[in-house]
Amino acid sequence: MGAGIARHVLATPGLELVGVYGKRRERSGLDVGRAIGLGRDLGLTIETDLTSLATRTKPDVAIQATCSRLEDAWPEIETLLRHGISVVSIAEEMAYPSCSSPTIAAAMDDLARTHRAAVIGTGINPDFVLDLLVILLTGVCLSIDSITATRVNDLSRYGPTVLRAQGVGMTPDGFKAGAKAGTVRGHIGFAESISMIAAALGLSIDSIEQTVEPIVSDIRRETSFITVEPGCVAGTRHTAIAYRQGKPFITLDHPQQVRPKLAGVETGDLIEIDGTPNLRLTGNPEIPGGVGTIAIAVNMIPRVLAAAPGYHSMADLPVPVALLGGVGLGTELSDRRGRHA
Amino acid sequence: MGAGIARHVLATPGLELVGVYGKRRERSGLDVGRAIGLGRDLGLTIETDLTSLATRTKPDVAIQATCSRLEDAWPEIETLLRHGISVVSIAEEMAYPSCSSPTIAAAMDDLARTHRAAVIGTGINPDFVLDLLVILLTGVCLSIDSITATRVNDLSRYGPTVLRAQGVGMTPDGFKAGAKAGTVRGHIGFAESISMIAAALGLSIDSIEQTVEPIVSDIRRETSFITVEPGCVAGTRHTAIAYRQGKPFITLDHPQQVRPKLAGVETGDLIEIDGTPNLRLTGNPEIPGGVGTIAIAVNMIPRVLAAAPGYHSMADLPVPVALLGGVGLGTELSDRRGRHA
Repeated sequence: MGAGIARHVLATPGLELVGVYGKRRERSGLDVGRAIGLGRDLGLTIETDLTSLATRTKPDVAIQATCSRLEDAWPEIETLLRHGISVVSIAEEMAYPSCSSPTIAAAMDDLARTHRAAVIGTGINPDFVLDLLVILLTGVCLSIDSITATRVNDLSRYGPTVLRAQGVGMTPDGFKAGAKAGTVRGHIGFAESISMIAAALGLSIDSIEQTVEPIVSDIRRETSFITVEPGCVAGTRHTAIAYRQGKPFITLDHPQQVRPKLAGVETGDLIEIDGTPNLRLTGNPEIPGGVGTIAIAVNMIPRVLAAAPGYHSMADLPVPVALLGGVGLGTELSDRRGRHA
Repeated sequence: MGAGIARHVLATPGLELVGVYGKRRERSGLDVGRAIGLGRDLGLTIETDLTSLATRTKPDVAIQATCSRLEDAWPEIETLLRHGISVVSIAEEMAYPSCSSPTIAAAMDDLARTHRAAVIGTGINPDFVLDLLVILLTGVCLSIDSITATRVNDLSRYGPTVLRAQGVGMTPDGFKAGAKAGTVRGHIGFAESISMIAAALGLSIDSIEQTVEPIVSDIRRETSFITVEPGCVAGTRHTAIAYRQGKPFITLDHPQQVRPKLAGVETGDLIEIDGTPNLRLTGNPEIPGGVGTIAIAVNMIPRVLAAAPGYHSMADLPVPVALLGGVGLGTELSDRRGRHA
């Protein structure tokens, strides 16, 4: 993800890439151009000391893209905020940090306000398909009885880290053991998506029930990274149901697998709101998680730079938009006021 | 629309309806409860002097819902802003006021800033389906070659004013004459939707070409308001193409008719982005314009109250959300910071 984000920053007029931090010591000193696959040197090297990088380069904003968990993201975000640098994070748990740690969430918000910086979590899931898009749709409703959102996606392009976390290639027994041990974890972000929706609607949720089931394949499925034999696991079906007053109020369903089409499974996003009016929105195929997260992380830069100090979820800021005209050209304001300067 | 908006305001905890303005003198003094179909008195009457109503009641926000054109909306909005009252307008041309009058747009923005009030335009089309939703989707794109958005909707529930403007029931010759005379006008809002999208993307548009064609019915179609004979007009197909560098960049297509299902036409919203990635989002049936506009006008109240002084388009503010928990309870902020007070 980091390489894709760096490439998109370089391709966007008005943005300047002033530094790249890498977690892995063995990549320290590597030219960024080579590391992100440009095939040429950029004259900028990967650094592993975030404090010295932040102090020297003093960027307006940093994109934090090294992990999924809040507790792993927080030390990096903390360093950036202490230097007054605003942060766009793609860590899944940053979608709604008070879910995994109310303490870190409050500390982050306080630190950002103190240093007059803004910090947001963004991505495709969580942060867009199963939450922001849902919230936006509720905006045309007078009343809502229940919300169901389903994302059927394709893991074929993903590498070993993601595949392992989804149990791909395992036997059903191995999957069960992995799920128990926490190495097969399914999707990260359901609690965050549900909390974001519920908070936006101004409602409280009684409880969230999550289930993680293997998707067992009856056919052979192959990707460049893995082969799934018949009878083995092609992916994970992870669901979450948020209850309110004893009834399911928000249901999120997310089957992820390699080569779904071989098994006759169509990928796509589906949001259904049962209320006044009834709504049904479909994305076919699904909004891609990889390229989509790269795009939205960069596209949110002007939004975070214009935001008030503190933490913001995606529901708190104006919507992301493709930066086709570049950043900082002020077209929108001058246009809006009728002065086509 | 006004009656529906008043009913939704009354049904939303935390909102108080303090006054109702009506344009038509003959409704002056009518009890609002009776006028909006509650079947009982509210102890609040319709008033026709906006200045005295604004001075006496001093509301935080007013919903302006009396017209489509900016020049008709502006005197009412001007009065409200002069009293420091923020405004949510459903006038179509308020989606992007600098399209129809850069002068009024700049005056409105200045006046709102002077009186520390915010003013927005909102609705379903323009303002949501063919613009805000499009802009949001571009947010997950690295690049975009073209955008196509289609809204096929059903006019069966609409009354004489809307039907006349769409030429429903006319002969094809009558339609042609009406289109020339400006009485058959098609959709209002394409220029506004296109300008909103282009400004958000930071791009300029060379020209916009619009066409208004009759949808001639080969069958008899009936609603409670009108009967369309075979060979007569069931509605209008209005399209707009925005050119950039000699090529179509944004195409908006909006066929509107009564009883589309009788002619085998499925209603729905469709947004297609040709870019990286390619995206395709479908709403079936279409997001309803009537109830949807009522909902979004009220649901935007907290957004306009939290906005900076001045004019804002829907792309400038956080997304609308259904106010299921009411207004002003502060759930979101306390939750977000992990303090479930």
